[in-house]
Amino acid sequence: MVIVMAPEATQQDIEAIVGLVSRAGGDAFVSRGVNRTIIGLVGDIARFMNLNLGGMSGVAEVMRVSTPYKLVSRDHHPERSTVRVGNVPIGPGTITLIAGPCAVETPDQTLAAARMAQAAGATLLRGGAYKPRTSPYAFQGLGEAGLRILADVRAETGLPIVTEVVDAHDVELVASYADMLQVGTRNAQNFGLLQAVGSVGKPVMLKRGMSATIEEWLMAAEYIAQRGNLEIVLCERGIRTFETATRNTLDISAVPVVQRLAHLPVIVDPSHSGGRRDLVLPLTRAAIAVGADGVIIDVHPTPEQALCDGPQALVDGDLDELGRIVRELPPLMGRTLATGLTPVA
Amino acid sequence: MVIVMAPEATQQDIEAIVGLVSRAGGDAFVSRGVNRTIIGLVGDIARFMNLNLGGMSGVAEVMRVSTPYKLVSRDHHPERSTVRVGNVPIGPGTITLIAGPCAVETPDQTLAAARMAQAAGATLLRGGAYKPRTSPYAFQGLGEAGLRILADVRAETGLPIVTEVVDAHDVELVASYADMLQVGTRNAQNFGLLQAVGSVGKPVMLKRGMSATIEEWLMAAEYIAQRGNLEIVLCERGIRTFETATRNTLDISAVPVVQRLAHLPVIVDPSHSGGRRDLVLPLTRAAIAVGADGVIIDVHPTPEQALCDGPQALVDGDLDELGRIVRELPPLMGRTLATGLTPVA
Amino acid sequence: MVIVMAPEATQQDIEAIVGLVSRAGGDAFVSRGVNRTIIGLVGDIARFMNLNLGGMSGVAEVMRVSTPYKLVSRDHHPERSTVRVGNVPIGPGTITLIAGPCAVETPDQTLAAARMAQAAGATLLRGGAYKPRTSPYAFQGLGEAGLRILADVRAETGLPIVTEVVDAHDVELVASYADMLQVGTRNAQNFGLLQAVGSVGKPVMLKRGMSATIEEWLMAAEYIAQRGNLEIVLCERGIRTFETATRNTLDISAVPVVQRLAHLPVIVDPSHSGGRRDLVLPLTRAAIAVGADGVIIDVHPTPEQALCDGPQALVDGDLDELGRIVRELPPLMGRTLATGLTPVA
Amino acid sequence: MVIVMAPEATQQDIEAIVGLVSRAGGDAFVSRGVNRTIIGLVGDIARFMNLNLGGMSGVAEVMRVSTPYKLVSRDHHPERSTVRVGNVPIGPGTITLIAGPCAVETPDQTLAAARMAQAAGATLLRGGAYKPRTSPYAFQGLGEAGLRILADVRAETGLPIVTEVVDAHDVELVASYADMLQVGTRNAQNFGLLQAVGSVGKPVMLKRGMSATIEEWLMAAEYIAQRGNLEIVLCERGIRTFETATRNTLDISAVPVVQRLAHLPVIVDPSHSGGRRDLVLPLTRAAIAVGADGVIIDVHPTPEQALCDGPQALVDGDLDELGRIVRELPPLMGRTLATGLTPVA
Repeated sequence: MVIVMAPEATQQDIEAIVGLVSRAGGDAFVSRGVNRTIIGLVGDIARFMNLNLGGMSGVAEVMRVSTPYKLVSRDHHPERSTVRVGNVPIGPGTITLIAGPCAVETPDQTLAAARMAQAAGATLLRGGAYKPRTSPYAFQGLGEAGLRILADVRAETGLPIVTEVVDAHDVELVASYADMLQVGTRNAQNFGLLQAVGSVGKPVMLKRGMSATIEEWLMAAEYIAQRGNLEIVLCERGIRTFETATRNTLDISAVPVVQRLAHLPVIVDPSHSGGRRDLVLPLTRAAIAVGADGVIIDVHPTPEQALCDGPQALVDGDLDELGRIVRELPPLMGRTLATGLTPVA
Repeated sequence: MVIVMAPEATQQDIEAIVGLVSRAGGDAFVSRGVNRTIIGLVGDIARFMNLNLGGMSGVAEVMRVSTPYKLVSRDHHPERSTVRVGNVPIGPGTITLIAGPCAVETPDQTLAAARMAQAAGATLLRGGAYKPRTSPYAFQGLGEAGLRILADVRAETGLPIVTEVVDAHDVELVASYADMLQVGTRNAQNFGLLQAVGSVGKPVMLKRGMSATIEEWLMAAEYIAQRGNLEIVLCERGIRTFETATRNTLDISAVPVVQRLAHLPVIVDPSHSGGRRDLVLPLTRAAIAVGADGVIIDVHPTPEQALCDGPQALVDGDLDELGRIVRELPPLMGRTLATGLTPVA
Repeated sequence: MVIVMAPEATQQDIEAIVGLVSRAGGDAFVSRGVNRTIIGLVGDIARFMNLNLGGMSGVAEVMRVSTPYKLVSRDHHPERSTVRVGNVPIGPGTITLIAGPCAVETPDQTLAAARMAQAAGATLLRGGAYKPRTSPYAFQGLGEAGLRILADVRAETGLPIVTEVVDAHDVELVASYADMLQVGTRNAQNFGLLQAVGSVGKPVMLKRGMSATIEEWLMAAEYIAQRGNLEIVLCERGIRTFETATRNTLDISAVPVVQRLAHLPVIVDPSHSGGRRDLVLPLTRAAIAVGADGVIIDVHPTPEQALCDGPQALVDGDLDELGRIVRELPPLMGRTLATGLTPVA
Repeated sequence: MVIVMAPEATQQDIEAIVGLVSRAGGDAFVSRGVNRTIIGLVGDIARFMNLNLGGMSGVAEVMRVSTPYKLVSRDHHPERSTVRVGNVPIGPGTITLIAGPCAVETPDQTLAAARMAQAAGATLLRGGAYKPRTSPYAFQGLGEAGLRILADVRAETGLPIVTEVVDAHDVELVASYADMLQVGTRNAQNFGLLQAVGSVGKPVMLKRGMSATIEEWLMAAEYIAQRGNLEIVLCERGIRTFETATRNTLDISAVPVVQRLAHLPVIVDPSHSGGRRDLVLPLTRAAIAVGADGVIIDVHPTPEQALCDGPQALVDGDLDELGRIVRELPPLMGRTLATGLTPVA
């Protein structure tokens, strides 16, 4: 941490900071310039952050130097991690295709979407039973009935299930069905939910908040990690910007940036970022080429009847091309398409 | 709603839409242009939104014309509403000053802050017992112990309490102490929480999500209203933009824009929007002048020791000027400073 | 300036930087921490910025501490400046109302708008002869014919003229008619134009670029100042954000922030920021209340016939209220409405 | 175009619009709903845009349906275009690698960078002689001396030159040296410059404005096209968002979105978008994979001595990998690396 003093700061102000830092077990190095004095702090940043240094007399600015997240940081864990969902790996050597319907609507629709996903090369099934919707008048998901449908489709296809949980108090219920819990963009700073999914012992997919900086995203992951769960996969799904041609702006650069800062796998959601079917395959190619560890894609047997996000779901006619992409592109990146289905009972 | 067809849309595509709308109880008016056909829909927009019209063959774009929120809209409720917290009104004829510490830390600190607030003209006390923090290593609030402190300070000062709730399952507990429940910016799309505060029978202050459009903010209010609670006060607290000189960018224009769209009172938080003490008084003046129905301000007896947001809290030396502003500016707007303390028992 | 070294930086890397800084006439103070070393630089920041320190081996981050603009900074010029346009002051003791049509269309329209402006209390006339338009098919302004109309209206009314220049090579021509040159938001980083208006000896109004940070805005002003012209008025006119309810988001906080950093006057454009007539008066009140040194407002005798930005122009019915605002609000801020008309010949 | 009337609009308001549109040679179709009336306009949108329909009494909103750009639109020119710079194509069948130094500094540095570029597979040389810089104290480029160096390096290597022009009055001079003129992000709405490069008969590379919507970017291209020049290549270079981990946010989705709307080639600048060397190769792969028609990349023999943007330039050690990417990835996209050097005299 670096503290920049205001030009008018007094010697007493400087000494007050040095004393405070030293009482907190840190060291403070003072550099006096012509106009300003700079104080470099060495020690435990988490303790310093609780000191309210910015509120001290004479302080102009407090600049952080080291990262405020510890458990997810690559600083102390330089190897990139692989997270396993059932037998399916998500990590540096593979590309994992997760696909399925945005929302679970009926057993037939879910099974048909799962078969589509599998045909394209997917080894994990996505599907929402709890849908956070901007409008209270929109379809909110089937709840536990949806989870049961997902479990039936898993039994039929062998595909482990990734599904969203939106409330801390549903975490145990959802975890009793799901193989991986998803935390969505609107809950990216719902800290109670983050702590709950951190405690339940299932892998978690954490979507980036639509206006979360990369640092805030990693801090959200730290909330999960702090409860003892490091089986976290980060998912870039587009951020909010001034551009309205796409639903969100896919921040493709975030993939290599995050992979450098954190050891967790990073995947991309090309369906929700663009919000348009015609962008899904180009963005899938971009995601694999930039180095993502996987992609998560909406597919639907009859998107014109979908109760949620139909306009972005891939249809039957797109699956061959999707299959070609996830098989031909990974080798150029030194990777292979992830396999590892759970044997169907 | 207006549906714009793609240039290549067929007569069959158009008829399919007309049929679908008509089966949903609506009317569809078809305007054929040289390049494109436009279909105007008349009827219940909530039903149309579930039709997935954007996914129909031949559709280029679906544009909404009327508002998707009903209960909070001024369309059917042209008079602007007044919400009462204890005996204190928040609404069109008054300016209500809500002030207090960002976080409840100790009984002494909370009482001192409440006395500061009162001295400046505040008739409602703010203070957080549950603090959603970006970092899991930061102070998270005192929880129920903090609520008890607030209740004691209310008994001492007569100031009704506004305090944040961050989890749906704490709503009843918090409501048993608080006079008004606050939903914070990070929970602006935590729909379970919105529904819970909508059901508990206490006034609610709904902060704008830091990346919420005005429409999304009003939809969040609609979630509360739908559970039978129209005692909602909206609070503009800054949005996330590219500018980093301030913590957030106060969207001052949102105040008159929202007042035109919704009948609910709108207040401004000049403390959290700027994140800097030196901006609080100028932004308070701007908020009153633009027509806000109140302001909510952080004060702290010793901000250099604050566990949360000390750098933005007003101190003793600022209170005279704050008092002058909230007394002298409202009459120019045809308003008066809201009073109405609950008698101290 | 502070240089943060990467954890893997070597002693040799550190020495290379110390040597480079010292050869550039600066001092480098080295603070060694457990994980990282921090180097504080003291000396001429402009020279350091050309050293490409960020490209040196072992450097993780370069953080600026002092401001990169010198001439417009308040550091060495603590008194806030007053700029005079004709006899009209723009500065800390007054509120200056600048009003007129967005575009000069005809002599009658311009004179009528000038009379409207004057009736409301304006002492400077705005009006565009060169209009930068997003579409090449939109009205682009009358050019020099428009300047002649403005000069005629000045002769008739005594109002000094503020008008935009969009090309470096028109600066002399426009300056031969205008009392103040305006540089618009789309030219906020047209550095050749900034240098040209800095050399011509007329006051300049510099609008903020629609995506310019406050620092970039002040650097643009520095380009003008560097050519010897400190008669610069900064104009906040809204920034681009995700919100679409208003054309731009008025960054009202920028007014006090900039007034603290720079000694130049700061005014607000409530017409272009919101892009809606119904927001102009509320935003004018907010601008004066936050401490702006003036406002610039579109008025038009028949906005439904305006060739540019009609929907945001005030009309006759708004003028009484505008006049009331600019007369009653300034005294609360310890200011008066600026007067000082040039005598009509 | 669709006009949405306010709920309180009168029959007279509606008739006024129908009359106005009809006098402008268009047709107006009126759809009356329960709450609102919608008027669909058919005819010449450019004429309608000058009517100020938004300013008419009773109008709530004006929504455009067809595109406001004509010459660059794919509506009337469905085949995607190929632009030739010297003998080098930029278009749908190829990937073109443009590389070179950010700024021309010396003959040796420029030649060395050109050799690096060529070694990696580049067939066009980039290099700036006029550098628009945020700070007036930063290196501004060598001007015509830089153009002469570029011409010498072209003679030596056979690489046609792409170089930026920043002022309308330099266009002829720059065009006398350059094979392709670049318009930079800060000049994306410098309409005089756009018109000048549209008139000079050389291909143009138009960078996206850092806060330009896709529509504004295409309107800027329309300014060039309107002067008779359709040899335009669009370059996505990142937009400004709240994220600060990268200098800009590369809007990778813009590539397929623009290719669908306009017939012009679209390339990507992975150097300026990220501003970090470690992101250049991942973003280059993403750009090719998403379907870009080329990439433009900074290379520098000694980036730690660069006068501009050294931290993002590729160095010798990166060239093999760059060469591998631009040779191996295009075939997966059904493309080949563009060749076509001009024979060295």
